[in-house]
Amino acid sequence: MTNEKILRVDMDSGDVVFEDIPQEYEHFAGRAFTSNVISDEVDPECHPLGPNNKLVFSSGIITGTSAPSSGRLSVGSKSPLTGGIKESNVGTDFSQALKKLQIRGIIVEGQSDEYKLLKIDKDGVELVPAEEWSGIGLYEAFDQLRDEFGDVSISGVGIAAEMSGFNSGIAFNDPEGLSSRYAGRGGLGAVMASRGLKYIVVDDNDAPGVEIKDRELFKKGRKKVVDGLQEHDVTKTDGALSNYGTSVLINIVNEVGALPHYNFSKGQSEEAEKVSGERKVEEIEKRGGENPHTCSPGCIIQCSEVWTKEDGSDPVGALEYESVWALGPNCGIFDLDVVGELNRKCNDLGMDTIETGATIAVAMEGELLEFGDGEAALELLEEVRENTPRSKLILNGAKFAGDALGVNRVPVVKNQAMPAYDPRAVKGIGITYATSTMGADHTAGYSICQEVLGVGGKRDPLEINGKPELSREMQATTAAIDSVGHCLFSAFALLDIEEALEGVVEEVNGVLDTDMTIDDVVEYGQDILKTEREFNKAAGFTKQDDRIPEFMREEKLPPHNVAFEVSNEQLDSVFEK
Amino acid sequence: MTNEKILRVDMDSGDVVFEDIPQEYEHFAGRAFTSNVISDEVDPECHPLGPNNKLVFSSGIITGTSAPSSGRLSVGSKSPLTGGIKESNVGTDFSQALKKLQIRGIIVEGQSDEYKLLKIDKDGVELVPAEEWSGIGLYEAFDQLRDEFGDVSISGVGIAAEMSGFNSGIAFNDPEGLSSRYAGRGGLGAVMASRGLKYIVVDDNDAPGVEIKDRELFKKGRKKVVDGLQEHDVTKTDGALSNYGTSVLINIVNEVGALPHYNFSKGQSEEAEKVSGERKVEEIEKRGGENPHTCSPGCIIQCSEVWTKEDGSDPVGALEYESVWALGPNCGIFDLDVVGELNRKCNDLGMDTIETGATIAVAMEGELLEFGDGEAALELLEEVRENTPRSKLILNGAKFAGDALGVNRVPVVKNQAMPAYDPRAVKGIGITYATSTMGADHTAGYSICQEVLGVGGKRDPLEINGKPELSREMQATTAAIDSVGHCLFSAFALLDIEEALEGVVEEVNGVLDTDMTIDDVVEYGQDILKTEREFNKAAGFTKQDDRIPEFMREEKLPPHNVAFEVSNEQLDSVFEK
Repeated sequence: MTNEKILRVDMDSGDVVFEDIPQEYEHFAGRAFTSNVISDEVDPECHPLGPNNKLVFSSGIITGTSAPSSGRLSVGSKSPLTGGIKESNVGTDFSQALKKLQIRGIIVEGQSDEYKLLKIDKDGVELVPAEEWSGIGLYEAFDQLRDEFGDVSISGVGIAAEMSGFNSGIAFNDPEGLSSRYAGRGGLGAVMASRGLKYIVVDDNDAPGVEIKDRELFKKGRKKVVDGLQEHDVTKTDGALSNYGTSVLINIVNEVGALPHYNFSKGQSEEAEKVSGERKVEEIEKRGGENPHTCSPGCIIQCSEVWTKEDGSDPVGALEYESVWALGPNCGIFDLDVVGELNRKCNDLGMDTIETGATIAVAMEGELLEFGDGEAALELLEEVRENTPRSKLILNGAKFAGDALGVNRVPVVKNQAMPAYDPRAVKGIGITYATSTMGADHTAGYSICQEVLGVGGKRDPLEINGKPELSREMQATTAAIDSVGHCLFSAFALLDIEEALEGVVEEVNGVLDTDMTIDDVVEYGQDILKTEREFNKAAGFTKQDDRIPEFMREEKLPPHNVAFEVSNEQLDSVFEK
Repeated sequence: MTNEKILRVDMDSGDVVFEDIPQEYEHFAGRAFTSNVISDEVDPECHPLGPNNKLVFSSGIITGTSAPSSGRLSVGSKSPLTGGIKESNVGTDFSQALKKLQIRGIIVEGQSDEYKLLKIDKDGVELVPAEEWSGIGLYEAFDQLRDEFGDVSISGVGIAAEMSGFNSGIAFNDPEGLSSRYAGRGGLGAVMASRGLKYIVVDDNDAPGVEIKDRELFKKGRKKVVDGLQEHDVTKTDGALSNYGTSVLINIVNEVGALPHYNFSKGQSEEAEKVSGERKVEEIEKRGGENPHTCSPGCIIQCSEVWTKEDGSDPVGALEYESVWALGPNCGIFDLDVVGELNRKCNDLGMDTIETGATIAVAMEGELLEFGDGEAALELLEEVRENTPRSKLILNGAKFAGDALGVNRVPVVKNQAMPAYDPRAVKGIGITYATSTMGADHTAGYSICQEVLGVGGKRDPLEINGKPELSREMQATTAAIDSVGHCLFSAFALLDIEEALEGVVEEVNGVLDTDMTIDDVVEYGQDILKTEREFNKAAGFTKQDDRIPEFMREEKLPPHNVAFEVSNEQLDSVFEK
């Protein structure tokens, strides 16, 4: 038995109730929790923005404890972008606050006609009117909410979500309180807004804290994980991620010829270096932003930072690799200040940077604006605030913009835009894009570890052989990590250092009082994928949805001049083993 | 053996070749021809507007003969709107001209960067440049093409197709040469434009004529069909269709409470009468347009007309029931002059009136313009010519507009907008909408015959029992009729008069030298459906695509206050018998 509860919020009636955790959910947290609730409670055929969808929040198993780099939260729903199940994962102290209040998950159902705010603290929960914080940018809204509610953790959706945009995400605060942490993918912002839920604020003052059943075991495991993270070159203090943030990858991925430029037209350029992690850090040092920096307390990887304008104003939060790429090279933009401003607008409007960057690049190909024209891109985003027809062309993702503008070269799977690795140049990640339950998603099975970074064994990125198996393994372990609550970047250490992996299992066993083995944890991940695939099947997905777009099979990507030659049979083998 | 040939047009190379008809295609014409070619030659996973799709034209088996009301043509492809197979059917002398030239079908493949015109006459075929007739309205273009090529039959696509609009159709001439006859549904205009094919002109001067293997049998059959059509109340000279055109249905369907108003919000109004067939005819008599009138030579039903402005200018062509409803009551517009202008703009821009009307109604619900504001609707369509961002919101159909504007009440199946019968008030047609291979399509299995008109036996429209079977039968016989080449309206007589039905089979046996029975013809239709369903399955369709939208299950339609309560099992039973 656990002290943790499920908080169920009925937006129709305004009722908020705490429920006991059912027996079969005893060990479900994070993605295991969200995906099982969606599978058990949501009709797969429902309209994602209609009355029958639900939105679920759940922190990881070990989130809220002293386990390092574990401030992660899963948000789940049926996605309006993909039409399938969605788990979008974010690092933020919001996750820890919920867990310390012993809330395993929040299930939001029904629809309110007026925007509400869900207020949670140790004394209880209430829904209060939130119209006054609608129609405004999220940086300002988060400030106002702290003025109103004090030093709280915040989740909220922005103007893009109010407009039902399929590329609207759900924002969370970073340590400075900026609206820069995102459960960005799959249009979950629109799901939240369509419930009538605009914000959640959580105050964990005097919270009872996370229940840890076997503290000794937990501490033993925790130490192994800390040691592993501090030993590994990628994750250690003063390591690659800590020094340069995630956009250390710009130069690395450009070097291997897999950094998509100009809407996936080439994989390498000399200009890419101008928006690299190295350049970013140089600038931050001049400007006096923060680096290294965490996304949530207790992280020792510290891949985040605070980017500002040249004069130190308009802090953005982190400039993540995916965001810099999407709004930068993929749009032919090689100016970090422009990228920073675009990123700030996305964070302010509540838009997924990956989907938005991919969408703007498609719009550039469709001649709505020109490649490389950062000012035009900024204006276009600014129009979202004014609700212009032009802005509506970029609010529903890359596929939608392609359809609007007659562009067939649209880099999506299951309607979701690909992230910053061209699948033609890195086959394994392409197989993950194609077969993931989530649509194109690098975090669903990050074979970049092996294929580019040489972590967990080095694989040739252009080789196809063995990649379906690699993707399958990575997808299962990822689903497990998304449930445990460790940041996915822990995987760098876990893949190379066996003891660190054991440590994770001990942390989990310590918290839950279980006796899982490493194999059990992998199986736990496989079970999640199975649940998600069954939901998607019942929503109408078939193997034809597990495909890379036609243009990537027909068009070769420079500099390697390779197409995506993975056969349908190879793709289908990932889950038909 | 037959003298007929297949004309294959390669837009990549510019090659045009005549091919013999393969043995297995010996008896395929019309929809049987187009659907089999698409199934045999097109990868179901291809991008509909990419290099691997094809566009196929084929007249019916008896088209071009003296069989009454048989000037029908099928156009087939993979649809950019539905993502599945598409057969769009049109009545025009173009169909007869092709057949008289002994061309069984045209297969267009590849893609040309510049717009071309395909010129066909008794001496041969050539592709000529057509850029000079692009970017202009189709009424004017058709005039110019006749100036250039003489008294030819014309097929062409308009500005909406040039912009890859999913609601672009393929236009054909009516007897006055107006661009008013449409293979409207499923975005086939965009497929044609994306091949680089802008027009086809056919000159059937000195054509050899249709080969009829057994003239005596054919004549015997023909007489029975003529007698049947002239005997039946709906189809006879001075009958309902001849007197009032298809929009005789406005008052009838309004009366039964199934005429969708204001984006499918109610099924009946007192205003509907203002746009009825009766009112239309009154006005035409005053204005001096034409009524009754045929869509193609040899039709004795004569349901067409020529509508004009009050002063007799700007002839539209026919104001069909579906068009009047879509652009009228469904948008809250009850003024025939406004409806006529909207219809003329659709015909001029190359847009499907049904999809466009449904889209404008969704845009009205999404507050892009107001219900009932005909001037605003006219302006919005006019913007298509100017390529404004606003116009792009309405070029890809109702679902796309709903996504753009945050409207969940979108009346589509497989992304294709429903025609003028609310499925909540007429269950059988709803079952056809849901389960047709074509997306929501009344012509795919027109159970309105039985459910509203009492033709072929009277059925209660609100009753569900027996309707899956009725829909199944109607879908199979329709697929056969779409291949034979008789207008679907012949079915009114065929359903009630056994001898007329025998006559059709004799016409077919006379032309083809076969000895089919009525049962064989039904099986012929069933085989087409099977081929189409297999294509759709391979394109990724599942039973989840055979569904009526959620809002129609949740929201009751006045005046009967009924939802669409047909169960998923009942829907699935149509093809899982």
